[in-house]
Amino acid sequence: MRILDTRNFSVTGFKAWGIHCGIKKTDKKDLAIISSDREAAVAGVFTKNRVKAACVLLDSARAKSGKGQVIVANSGCANACTGKRGMTDARATAEIAAREFGVKPDAVYLASTGVIGEFLPMSKLETGIKTAAGLLSSTGWEQAAEAIMTTDIYPKLSVVQEEIGGKTVTIAGIAKGSGMIHPNLATMLCFIATDANISAPMLKKALLTSTERSFNNITVDGDTSTNDMILCMANGAAGNKRPAAGGKDQKKFQACLDAVALSLAKQVVRDGEGATKFVEIEVRNAKNPVEAKRAAMTVAKSSLVKTALFGEDANWGRIMATLGCAGVEMDESRTDIYFGKAKLVEKGLGQGKAAERDATLALKQREVQIAIDLHKGKGNATVWTCDMSCEYIKINAAYRS
Amino acid sequence: MRILDTRNFSVTGFKAWGIHCGIKKTDKKDLAIISSDREAAVAGVFTKNRVKAACVLLDSARAKSGKGQVIVANSGCANACTGKRGMTDARATAEIAAREFGVKPDAVYLASTGVIGEFLPMSKLETGIKTAAGLLSSTGWEQAAEAIMTTDIYPKLSVVQEEIGGKTVTIAGIAKGSGMIHPNLATMLCFIATDANISAPMLKKALLTSTERSFNNITVDGDTSTNDMILCMANGAAGNKRPAAGGKDQKKFQACLDAVALSLAKQVVRDGEGATKFVEIEVRNAKNPVEAKRAAMTVAKSSLVKTALFGEDANWGRIMATLGCAGVEMDESRTDIYFGKAKLVEKGLGQGKAAERDATLALKQREVQIAIDLHKGKGNATVWTCDMSCEYIKINAAYRS
Repeated sequence: MRILDTRNFSVTGFKAWGIHCGIKKTDKKDLAIISSDREAAVAGVFTKNRVKAACVLLDSARAKSGKGQVIVANSGCANACTGKRGMTDARATAEIAAREFGVKPDAVYLASTGVIGEFLPMSKLETGIKTAAGLLSSTGWEQAAEAIMTTDIYPKLSVVQEEIGGKTVTIAGIAKGSGMIHPNLATMLCFIATDANISAPMLKKALLTSTERSFNNITVDGDTSTNDMILCMANGAAGNKRPAAGGKDQKKFQACLDAVALSLAKQVVRDGEGATKFVEIEVRNAKNPVEAKRAAMTVAKSSLVKTALFGEDANWGRIMATLGCAGVEMDESRTDIYFGKAKLVEKGLGQGKAAERDATLALKQREVQIAIDLHKGKGNATVWTCDMSCEYIKINAAYRS
Repeated sequence: MRILDTRNFSVTGFKAWGIHCGIKKTDKKDLAIISSDREAAVAGVFTKNRVKAACVLLDSARAKSGKGQVIVANSGCANACTGKRGMTDARATAEIAAREFGVKPDAVYLASTGVIGEFLPMSKLETGIKTAAGLLSSTGWEQAAEAIMTTDIYPKLSVVQEEIGGKTVTIAGIAKGSGMIHPNLATMLCFIATDANISAPMLKKALLTSTERSFNNITVDGDTSTNDMILCMANGAAGNKRPAAGGKDQKKFQACLDAVALSLAKQVVRDGEGATKFVEIEVRNAKNPVEAKRAAMTVAKSSLVKTALFGEDANWGRIMATLGCAGVEMDESRTDIYFGKAKLVEKGLGQGKAAERDATLALKQREVQIAIDLHKGKGNATVWTCDMSCEYIKINAAYRS
């Protein structure tokens, strides 16, 4: 697998672009289009929130066909909690794009992110889709990535290449998301495009596996959204032989998809609202992997742990208290906690001033590793989060203003 | 029931006081003692965190007897995650107090709150207990309430009187807690003293009921602690006839205990770390009361909802998105949301600019009511929370510094 530079890459048969069409009050980009020059296999993962935006309802129905060709994504307006009018607007958006690209409306997938409860400005969107369609470029991924940003500070892209079935296959992804990030995809959009020739069922399986290994292991604020989705299109333009189930090529494809998804997931955490630190939390030797992940996620979500990280305070008591409420088997007197390489806690007890000094040094870095050894079994898990700063409050107090 | 002024009240047969003995680095009070002049019935509710402070382990064992006479509570050091030495220190503390008051060590209950992982300064504590014992006063409740504060801004007291069994009975309580407040008693200490003559089993049942109706309906930051407890002592000094099970007197006693516990619980939320608003969240017509409470608590805990409240932004989409993840039966198109008296959302749809203006006015108050009608059944629940401000971050980033 080769990791490519995210500037000016292309994926055979795909074009992308992003523009400002007037949904956002500022002049920032707010409309992205990704299109394939031929029908592609499509797989999607959608929010588990019971309140689903119109685009989620539409796409999850369309994804059952396993086929598609165009993605239209807007930022600034979530088109969620908009009832029948929201659904009518979503269908109309797909029809506009379908006419523009000469495909059936069912081949168009929609994504929206932004304020909930507001309606899409349809005439702006219609003009925008026509404009963007005319600007599409095989190297327009960064523009597309910018156009799906809301509170994100920077666009998120990842691209890898691999030899699969006798050909060079490219897998590229863009993502947005900085607040409301939590397993099951909160306020997170991710679009992955590959020229691989792969069946829709195999693509779906691969996408679910990659999601579990990446986006479902990150948290920013523990909230989940109405609009989240990951869409993956594989158009087969690389001309490779299709990977056989269980074969080497399938494994290679999975590894590539994992790499793209994990890179994007980590970028989302790094860009967490107000984040000053990227924090890796590893739980070792839990009773089983499920408990390991639950324990790691509970620590990663705790406001008290996240504020202590912001304050660069090696306050391990908060981690211990959080573990005690995580609903996993744990025994204080067997638990070790590491900050970086410093073993701050052994068998439930603080290891003194030297350990605390080393732990505090580890905490002062931009990237922080915390490891927790429960000594209860063989379950391991690693998750990623960020600290919680005053900036997080400011961003979220003023979001709609 | 009469609600009394919390200045200079007394409860027959009880004395209380609080002093600074040197556990806190500042000169603030850090040691409280409450004692009864005779053996009292005792009931306790303790943290469900798997990591329990030494005092929790000691008291929960002692509370099985249903008897006790003295409470010694310190702030500044939680004596949690301190292993065998912590347990030895706790036992020694009880023995010091037992000698001072001429009671058996088993009659002494301990409570600690503060930093986790540090040991109690035993010699300071010993001197402190002797000093405080000499200062005890029948009207020393405010001093005791001050001595259990950590990040609290003001002391929390509540006192009521009622005619029970032919006598005037007084029920008084003090509490601390401002961060880490969440059901099952996170970083919350509450001591209730009454001169009622009531059996220990009836007292325990009453306390469990009151806790469910008060402290288990509040949340500040969703974290839970290693040290939380509610202790209730009833010394019988009022000389009333014992309430009969199911009788009018038992109901009156319950109502009084509920009133004291709810008053203290609300004071804890009002004093939430960095809180600028006291927020009541009512869920109506959920499938059942359990789902109503789960929905209300999920909204009350959401960082995104709490930051929007701080920003006085009537961002109802965040409430809807949170409800969708609460794990309760709900249907967006049947859900109504009120801010104060303003019906901001009807059947899942925003009700326009006038409703939003009224909702925003309601949000600008110091006390905010949010009501959610799910139209799914007959389950109702009301919980209390506060907003999340920059001050919360600052307090928790710097807690140990």
